[in-house]
Amino acid sequence: MTDFQRDLIPEPALRRLPWYLAYVTLLRERGDEFVSSTQISRELKVDASQIAKDLSLLDIRGKTRIGYEVPLLEHKLEEFLGFRRSHRAVVVGAGSLGKALMQDSGLSRYGLNIVAAFDTDPALAGMSYGGIPVYPVGEMTARVKEAGATVGIITVPVEHAQSTADALVEAGVKALWNFTPFRLSANDGVIISNTSIYAHLAVMYNRMESGK
Amino acid sequence: MTDFQRDLIPEPALRRLPWYLAYVTLLRERGDEFVSSTQISRELKVDASQIAKDLSLLDIRGKTRIGYEVPLLEHKLEEFLGFRRSHRAVVVGAGSLGKALMQDSGLSRYGLNIVAAFDTDPALAGMSYGGIPVYPVGEMTARVKEAGATVGIITVPVEHAQSTADALVEAGVKALWNFTPFRLSANDGVIISNTSIYAHLAVMYNRMESGK
Repeated sequence: MTDFQRDLIPEPALRRLPWYLAYVTLLRERGDEFVSSTQISRELKVDASQIAKDLSLLDIRGKTRIGYEVPLLEHKLEEFLGFRRSHRAVVVGAGSLGKALMQDSGLSRYGLNIVAAFDTDPALAGMSYGGIPVYPVGEMTARVKEAGATVGIITVPVEHAQSTADALVEAGVKALWNFTPFRLSANDGVIISNTSIYAHLAVMYNRMESGK
Repeated sequence: MTDFQRDLIPEPALRRLPWYLAYVTLLRERGDEFVSSTQISRELKVDASQIAKDLSLLDIRGKTRIGYEVPLLEHKLEEFLGFRRSHRAVVVGAGSLGKALMQDSGLSRYGLNIVAAFDTDPALAGMSYGGIPVYPVGEMTARVKEAGATVGIITVPVEHAQSTADALVEAGVKALWNFTPFRLSANDGVIISNTSIYAHLAVMYNRMESGK
């Protein structure tokens, strides 16, 4: 990767690009050589001009009437989305969700390398899940620094969310991936990504009730 | 619950309300009796007038200078968000994420009652996780209908996402909760909620690279 400061890409584009990637990976697996934005548009129900605009963010050009080379497009998408670099991460809270993330081999394909987990339960210390060791939470600061982890994944009960976030930032992580429904606050320089699955439920229920 | 057709609440409000709920639940657990929108605003860094506007969606009134009764506000938020009704759901794909969802006791507190799971792996049929049985995927249609499940949770590998969605809709579910990065399509009446955790990673990485 080049090391210039990258531009802030609008979030809607960053949310669409992984759809294209998932589709292009399917095409590569079934041996397709080329794909056009029209074909992606038809399959994913996204406007073709929107797709062409999104893909113009990448350093790739399609060929007239043939489209993009599938393996190259997959590679460029992965690179652009940061999935080909390794980001060191720790999990705090080795409950069912924390364990599932540790065991999800998919995350490393998406550039997330979980190196350690922490929990307050002494019975969990010494265990490992998906090959990732669990340590007592008291060792967190030292181990995060030692490992040079930049991402802290928060899967603790909601009442410990903010104090966990504070401790992770203090230990040096640059980004918090918050799976609790609590709205965290942190210094300006810290990135917070909220993935509260419960909030998604509220939206889904409302759409179901209102008949869409 | 009343059975009138509910209004379509704007998604940003539906995403903020669970933050208020998580905070109000904390307050109730620590024994606080009243909370004002000013206090919520200070704690969650959301504009106080925005909070007042969001809470005006609920059938509740705060008292001047005292604010809202904490247990009542919690109850009204849970009710409004659909968390106090039971929505029957099935999980398709009992891999690490599927199992984690089955074992997550939090989901039932948020109104989601997972009644069965399905997997193509014959070794998983007959197992149960968090008390929820796993069945062969061939039994899906019959069991979804029998259970009257309205929500289908998709945690299969990406190449099976669309065919799983089609089968769930055919079996009668009204909403699909898609955890794969694939962009599903379905008939107009079907609600699709996308929770691709990998898409969140792309946004987080970009924010980290660009120095926020």
